[in-house]
Amino acid sequence: MPELRKDPVIKRWVIIATERAKRPKDFSQKEEEVKSTFCPFDYGNEHLTPPEVLAFRPADTEPNTPGWWVRVVPNKFPALDPDVESKKYGRGMYDAMSGFGAHEVIIETPNHNTTLALLDVNQIEEIVWAYRHRYIALSNDSRIKYILIFRNHRKDAGASLSHPHSQIIATPIVPKRVQEELDGAKEYYSYKERCVFCDMINQERLENERIVEENEDFIAFEPFAARFPFETWILPKKHQNSFANITEQQVKKFARVLKNTLLRIYKALDNPPYNFMLHTAPTSEEGKVYYHWHLEIVPRLTKVAGFEWGSGFYINPVPPEDAAKYLKEVEI
Amino acid sequence: MPELRKDPVIKRWVIIATERAKRPKDFSQKEEEVKSTFCPFDYGNEHLTPPEVLAFRPADTEPNTPGWWVRVVPNKFPALDPDVESKKYGRGMYDAMSGFGAHEVIIETPNHNTTLALLDVNQIEEIVWAYRHRYIALSNDSRIKYILIFRNHRKDAGASLSHPHSQIIATPIVPKRVQEELDGAKEYYSYKERCVFCDMINQERLENERIVEENEDFIAFEPFAARFPFETWILPKKHQNSFANITEQQVKKFARVLKNTLLRIYKALDNPPYNFMLHTAPTSEEGKVYYHWHLEIVPRLTKVAGFEWGSGFYINPVPPEDAAKYLKEVEI
Repeated sequence: MPELRKDPVIKRWVIIATERAKRPKDFSQKEEEVKSTFCPFDYGNEHLTPPEVLAFRPADTEPNTPGWWVRVVPNKFPALDPDVESKKYGRGMYDAMSGFGAHEVIIETPNHNTTLALLDVNQIEEIVWAYRHRYIALSNDSRIKYILIFRNHRKDAGASLSHPHSQIIATPIVPKRVQEELDGAKEYYSYKERCVFCDMINQERLENERIVEENEDFIAFEPFAARFPFETWILPKKHQNSFANITEQQVKKFARVLKNTLLRIYKALDNPPYNFMLHTAPTSEEGKVYYHWHLEIVPRLTKVAGFEWGSGFYINPVPPEDAAKYLKEVEI
Repeated sequence: MPELRKDPVIKRWVIIATERAKRPKDFSQKEEEVKSTFCPFDYGNEHLTPPEVLAFRPADTEPNTPGWWVRVVPNKFPALDPDVESKKYGRGMYDAMSGFGAHEVIIETPNHNTTLALLDVNQIEEIVWAYRHRYIALSNDSRIKYILIFRNHRKDAGASLSHPHSQIIATPIVPKRVQEELDGAKEYYSYKERCVFCDMINQERLENERIVEENEDFIAFEPFAARFPFETWILPKKHQNSFANITEQQVKKFARVLKNTLLRIYKALDNPPYNFMLHTAPTSEEGKVYYHWHLEIVPRLTKVAGFEWGSGFYINPVPPEDAAKYLKEVEI
């Protein structure tokens, strides 16, 4: 059973995944990329994943058979488990919790050989709807405090399967990184009586040096203090604390800005590995006035090393103004 | 000139390294490891680095010539620059600072084809003395608020040169990650009136499940909430807030525990890439009673992906109790 453990100094939680515990020899550095033709996410292999929790499929098809265009299944090797009783306990001076939570995979298309940036915008809308459906379904469990939707693209960004997919992890506590954003946004709001993210949008539009994409409802820009080269954030232009509140029109516009932004990154950097993370308010809707959901896209182009791990500082060799310029110049 | 920029939400600083700004094509993924026979850290190439700021060498040798056994030079491509005026300024709603600071390289041995774990323990003592000398010299500048000593081993851990070396970066502000440790340790102290790190040492000795190495003055263990497989911390057993206060006897004992620990990791995991970071009190000596310096060693065996970046949670597939057992069983 996975166990959550808390660092007694900085209160960071980790998941100790005892189920798939590895031994030293499992970390061979000569590991080769497996070029298997078999994929559990392809049509016809539906019985090899846990049963689907959501699928968009024709009315005349059976669950867990081909025909779907978006399919969501529990992760076969979950980091957290919905069937575990949620409980906290001490271990001497240390704090731990049972590994309660959820871990699901959104299979974005039946087409194995493509990626999100290259999908038709209508298909991306369907994926965003799937995100929203699962977000709302998971948030109905009061033991769930936070739901993180994220995507790992390519092996160097942590993807273990190449078939296009995103993931959802639902946690029994609000993660540290999210709490830091909530606290920072709250502090700014106390001082200014304005949302810090709304102010950032205004500042970016005023300077117009870091904006990459914009439409009626969304804006994509390189953040002023970007940690990584070509780091790009997408925000709804109207204040909205939770992704759960996304409207039908916003889904369309979000799919469009997401496709265009990912396509620019794909073309400018030759299909780089990347992660994206959707940051939204906790399921309690804490931060209604001061938090503002957004997507953070981070291409994995540089190595995070001792200085970054030791300090929390990042060294970014590409000024975000230059990155925005390169991305805007790409023809899409 | 490098610029420091602050994230307006979570107050994380980044260094935008404009000097060595990269373009999209500089991030080619087909990059091959350069197998050059030339190395600026070898004997005879002393004129190719900036002039040495410290060297342990025979009295009859000239600076910047061969003969040294440990040599410290400014980084040729520094992340921060001591010759820049230290100033803070606003950019609209955002906060920035000039790139004042220092960035030095400790060349650990003239021998190109070795690594810290394999050096003689006397040579490691010399390296620790070099750390201490440079730490104290840099801390005499009152504009310097924090000094981080760290090591990147192998390309996958961010090393750009294979010649054994460590680095020092001195920053004009206390880094976020360090401030979090200070704040957490202070909070624990307010509640318990004890140092959290001293309590961890006692807890580890009581359980004796995660200890890897121990001598008269130092202890090395896998932390209870380890982020990474085989993450190992080394702490002085007697409360000591700053590395600057290390005594002559402690230098000897630290060199020994460091060598043994690195050698266990080297053998158990077949010379893996790793980072180590020396966490010490800020130069102001904040946290005299509640902070406790230590070295964090993190082998780079797993990829940090979207979930980790988005949440600050880590998924560790090796329980630290198992990792300690494997490391202790290695014959050194």
